[in-house]
Amino acid sequence: MDWKGRDVISIRDFSKEDIETVLATAERLERELKEKGQLEYAKGKILATLFFEPSTRTRLSFESAMHRLGGAVIGFAEASTSSVKKGESLRDTIKTVEQYCDVIVIRHPKEGAARLAAEVAEVPVINAGDGSNQHPTQTLLDLYTIKKEFGRIDGLKIGLLGDLKYGRTVHSLAEALTFYDVELYLISPELLRMPRHIVEELREKGMKVVETTTLEDVIGKLDVLYVTRIQKERFPDEQEYLKVKGSYQVNLKVLEKAKDELRIMHPLPRVDEIHPEVDNTKHAIYFRQVFNGVPVRMALLALVLGVI
Amino acid sequence: MDWKGRDVISIRDFSKEDIETVLATAERLERELKEKGQLEYAKGKILATLFFEPSTRTRLSFESAMHRLGGAVIGFAEASTSSVKKGESLRDTIKTVEQYCDVIVIRHPKEGAARLAAEVAEVPVINAGDGSNQHPTQTLLDLYTIKKEFGRIDGLKIGLLGDLKYGRTVHSLAEALTFYDVELYLISPELLRMPRHIVEELREKGMKVVETTTLEDVIGKLDVLYVTRIQKERFPDEQEYLKVKGSYQVNLKVLEKAKDELRIMHPLPRVDEIHPEVDNTKHAIYFRQVFNGVPVRMALLALVLGVI
Amino acid sequence: MDWKGRDVISIRDFSKEDIETVLATAERLERELKEKGQLEYAKGKILATLFFEPSTRTRLSFESAMHRLGGAVIGFAEASTSSVKKGESLRDTIKTVEQYCDVIVIRHPKEGAARLAAEVAEVPVINAGDGSNQHPTQTLLDLYTIKKEFGRIDGLKIGLLGDLKYGRTVHSLAEALTFYDVELYLISPELLRMPRHIVEELREKGMKVVETTTLEDVIGKLDVLYVTRIQKERFPDEQEYLKVKGSYQVNLKVLEKAKDELRIMHPLPRVDEIHPEVDNTKHAIYFRQVFNGVPVRMALLALVLGVI
Repeated sequence: MDWKGRDVISIRDFSKEDIETVLATAERLERELKEKGQLEYAKGKILATLFFEPSTRTRLSFESAMHRLGGAVIGFAEASTSSVKKGESLRDTIKTVEQYCDVIVIRHPKEGAARLAAEVAEVPVINAGDGSNQHPTQTLLDLYTIKKEFGRIDGLKIGLLGDLKYGRTVHSLAEALTFYDVELYLISPELLRMPRHIVEELREKGMKVVETTTLEDVIGKLDVLYVTRIQKERFPDEQEYLKVKGSYQVNLKVLEKAKDELRIMHPLPRVDEIHPEVDNTKHAIYFRQVFNGVPVRMALLALVLGVI
Repeated sequence: MDWKGRDVISIRDFSKEDIETVLATAERLERELKEKGQLEYAKGKILATLFFEPSTRTRLSFESAMHRLGGAVIGFAEASTSSVKKGESLRDTIKTVEQYCDVIVIRHPKEGAARLAAEVAEVPVINAGDGSNQHPTQTLLDLYTIKKEFGRIDGLKIGLLGDLKYGRTVHSLAEALTFYDVELYLISPELLRMPRHIVEELREKGMKVVETTTLEDVIGKLDVLYVTRIQKERFPDEQEYLKVKGSYQVNLKVLEKAKDELRIMHPLPRVDEIHPEVDNTKHAIYFRQVFNGVPVRMALLALVLGVI
Repeated sequence: MDWKGRDVISIRDFSKEDIETVLATAERLERELKEKGQLEYAKGKILATLFFEPSTRTRLSFESAMHRLGGAVIGFAEASTSSVKKGESLRDTIKTVEQYCDVIVIRHPKEGAARLAAEVAEVPVINAGDGSNQHPTQTLLDLYTIKKEFGRIDGLKIGLLGDLKYGRTVHSLAEALTFYDVELYLISPELLRMPRHIVEELREKGMKVVETTTLEDVIGKLDVLYVTRIQKERFPDEQEYLKVKGSYQVNLKVLEKAKDELRIMHPLPRVDEIHPEVDNTKHAIYFRQVFNGVPVRMALLALVLGVI
């Protein structure tokens, strides 16, 4: 697989070998950065971050990654300051901006926008989210985090908790995990179960999948608990939401039954699905997970720029 | 002419020698950048981009140019995030910001703002548009593009198409072209003809100027067709606009009569005055023209910073 | 005092030795920058500027300082483009952003926000204003300016003019000046006198403090006149404001009685409390004062990053 010039649009475009390449490159870059303090792989290169809708954490993570590689950044943080307002097509905007840079990171409210940008641009395009919150770099940093914490992904028992129906983050992660030998525990209220076709796909690929509505029943088995925000606005009935909400908050009491090695992850931002009291336990790794976004994005930038 | 510390406010301040210096410096920097990948002329220098009104493409082009020279960038993309809101005068804002940087690029909705900024500031000021869309760097990149495509400007037949009445871009380009031995074809609907005083000025300076309302009549003669956006909002009558619009769209049919060497330019953004089907023809160079903005702005920055 | 990793939240946290360290480091960095053109103390380091409310001059000053040190900058200029909108706590935002950077500069509308950020973050946090316009770097650059102009602070007669009641900038400056042997002249309308408890505190610390409502009476004695904006909106009565306003404008007439060495300072932005005609006199140093913000912020960044 030639990485130079490659677009990164969906995790579905990645083979297991691709994923392993990204994880190994991220590990190497993280180590080199720690040793040397400053890398110069992307010296003289320019990243354009085109955020047609705001997403501070994702934008700052990519910009940090580019700077850590010694490169420069241009771009915009929201569409209101972009020339999109003048009625220009996305196609023309991309054809224009690519003249100013070596790689594009795009975030766009419309599904398919990143794919279109990739088709139009000659420089590589990385999808930082289009239409939903799903984006391939989140899944890659999730996998990187699991591997870094346990030294492996194979053999782990991984629980996904929360909104498994609409949450694209957990859909992508579950699909990517089929490359590995893991047991998957899907923990959600009835209303928010993982769609049937995804569960079937996971099982067809040989994955052991357990579904439950009660975290307490499975917490003792898990190596990883991946928590997602339950989005209140999805619920037709406020009372229904409130009942569900309480039963799913991860707090110290729930964790009494957890294994010592349990790691709790979250793509953030969180609202109340993890109580702040959990932050100081050895289980909480969600801020380390945030940190891991930087080496993973460094790896992707270095690979598609062809500088590593 | 000493370039170090010079302000770049209007193309009218430029002699032919000045223009040639910019074009030659741009050519040199473009070549050096290609050979070395990274230049360091502006290492340790800071550009402040003060965009009192948004203009993403112009801002990103300047920022890219500064980074390509190895320099750094600070600034703001729109006035709402600037301290202008606190009732500070433009004069004080400029006197303040110049303490933080080595060169200023300013875009401002009020005509004369860039000239005022230049008078106030001790660091050099480059006008990225004030009051109208005219700005000298557009004209310079237009000239650079023509020279790069043909190896010369003299002897060419250049058509300007569209709104020649209000379009400052074409006014500036036409005036700058009087330094060269070109034939100018002014193609526009009656309502949007080039103002009489400009046409007279061009002819007084010895330029051959032909005016027409019909692109088809002259397309076969042209080496360059410079297309501008016809701004719908200028027309008192929607029907009149629609009739005009159709007759002026550059598409494959119109291009059947064009010379092989014809190059089509556009300052962008475009709306529908060039059909996307033209993009893949050998005639379309408007995205290369966008790219040329970078070496031209690199040249200006390096010259006024006195680092080349 | 170990500076590496230290937070800079309030000038009240600073000993005289701390202040002297910052001033000496700023002087050294300003000299080195002049000699070498470009410093690399912060090469490979990343500053995150988190401006939850806009403050262009402060943000650009910090960003300039970081670039002058050879470092990189990420961040946002106003809260609307940040993920705060998704209901995330400030605590989580800080814990997240610190994963992307080596030092944080924060500006926040709520008092106490910077202190909270400092408690949460493992990277050093510098307060660029929270709740009021007071921030420690303003006071430090004011002291640096006085020392640079006179070679010393001890022995000077310093006047503070304007809104001494609400103006936190002058409160902080007055408090910091108790470390030095200065005479302080508090010049304000009756309604805007310095709060009693501050005046008493100053006197208890041995400072000679003179209060007056009439600039003309004391202008001839002063070495420094520090002017602040009188904020119209504080006045219950427009007529009262207008009367006060006129009597306090610093203009050429008022300056007739001033000593030759008088230096006029202002934290800016100004509205009309200093007439523009004063700008070109030898007394006006408020734009040099702006410039001094850069070496002072360079010093703070270098110190808390532990790179000097």
